[in-house]
Amino acid sequence: MRIDMVTLFPNMFSGPFGDSIIKRAVDRGLLDIHYTNFRDYTEDKHHHVDDTPFGGGSGMVLMPEPLYKAVRDVLSKTEALAAKRRVIIMDPSGPVFNQAKARELAAYEQLVFICGHYEGFDARIYPLADEAISLGDFVLTGGELPAMVITDAVARMIPGVLGSVDSAPTDSFYDGLLEHPQYTRPRDFEGMEVPEVLLSGNHAKIREWRRRQSLLVTKKYRPDLLEHAELTEEEIDYLKQHGRKTEDHRADS
Amino acid sequence: MRIDMVTLFPNMFSGPFGDSIIKRAVDRGLLDIHYTNFRDYTEDKHHHVDDTPFGGGSGMVLMPEPLYKAVRDVLSKTEALAAKRRVIIMDPSGPVFNQAKARELAAYEQLVFICGHYEGFDARIYPLADEAISLGDFVLTGGELPAMVITDAVARMIPGVLGSVDSAPTDSFYDGLLEHPQYTRPRDFEGMEVPEVLLSGNHAKIREWRRRQSLLVTKKYRPDLLEHAELTEEEIDYLKQHGRKTEDHRADS
Repeated sequence: MRIDMVTLFPNMFSGPFGDSIIKRAVDRGLLDIHYTNFRDYTEDKHHHVDDTPFGGGSGMVLMPEPLYKAVRDVLSKTEALAAKRRVIIMDPSGPVFNQAKARELAAYEQLVFICGHYEGFDARIYPLADEAISLGDFVLTGGELPAMVITDAVARMIPGVLGSVDSAPTDSFYDGLLEHPQYTRPRDFEGMEVPEVLLSGNHAKIREWRRRQSLLVTKKYRPDLLEHAELTEEEIDYLKQHGRKTEDHRADS
Repeated sequence: MRIDMVTLFPNMFSGPFGDSIIKRAVDRGLLDIHYTNFRDYTEDKHHHVDDTPFGGGSGMVLMPEPLYKAVRDVLSKTEALAAKRRVIIMDPSGPVFNQAKARELAAYEQLVFICGHYEGFDARIYPLADEAISLGDFVLTGGELPAMVITDAVARMIPGVLGSVDSAPTDSFYDGLLEHPQYTRPRDFEGMEVPEVLLSGNHAKIREWRRRQSLLVTKKYRPDLLEHAELTEEEIDYLKQHGRKTEDHRADS
């Protein structure tokens, strides 16, 4: 997959993309990441990318022209991918990113991220993008961090990116529930012991315990997720019979 | 404010924190960011931080001991901040981060972020943290990117961090609504014109137009936000009378 970041701050990506799975994916040729600084597409002497808002107000607004030129240049250079690409603008007014969206985006061959920065961008920039995506209900300085987060979530879904070490299918959210508590060595850590069942060697019982813990943890911390989760009759009964007690060592909220 | 990142990948932070407002805040002494690699707190020859899960399964699980040692070391070195600090574990099962949480965290003098990585962490790590926070309903490789996003959102709320160029109060989400469309030069961009009212010089009309656009955009793209927004009777009437038509140049969804 080719990723294009259209941004004023290409250096911001060096840390997160220079380590961990993104770097591995790039090294293996599974991801190809390009940066386009739209300041390079300005024609005035001072290379302005923003200007004051019509109607007044504090803050600056990104002008449409440099971004249109930059994105169009990226698209024309990658014409061969036109049928399988998606241009995304990072914007707080877009639908909030989630795992279903990550799965959807992973099917494209090229993602072009338009990263705004500062106060905001001219509304006429919207038609440049196929869709707007928000990372959540909070305000950030720019679209760069959200674009990195989405790239990380999407990259994990591309076959071959994850080694056997951290395989995607058992992660949280893949089945719409939170993950069950995990335990590793030591068996006793400062008086907190690993649940007996996990030491039993009885795989059917372990599977059942994990699924039930996953249900209980979800009920306790994110009951809203249960509305869309696929549960069996038996699991629905189990949840009705059990309260909010979990074995996850977290303080009761 | 002091920020402590407890992470296996301190280099990941160099890009996002080496540019933009975070760097400016650090340069001005408003933010003081420290990195603690919990691999340095292992005692075995190979510096293992993870091990296989009890009960079987693919993937590795972060062991409690190195993280406990690392976090306790940070806390004891910063004892003077004990009354005004918060230890946060980045975890998909926590409540989802939002602007209210950013405002809440901005009131502390120290934030300690525990960044997991890979498959997951031993459940006995939870008691180390005051709270778990999730960035959203998706799976990432580690807690580093979420910790950066939260730091960016929180830093913006600290007095002095934002210059007059990008002042926080007019940003989206500060009043629970999406932002109105913004426009800057040119007045006509490829046939898309700036709305007349913004060129009128009538500030009362401009204010009214912006507020109403903000209401309409929110109704169209994030109607769920209207449930918690503070609206006047007149604004509620206005929304009832108007459909989903906005002037933001976005394709109808």
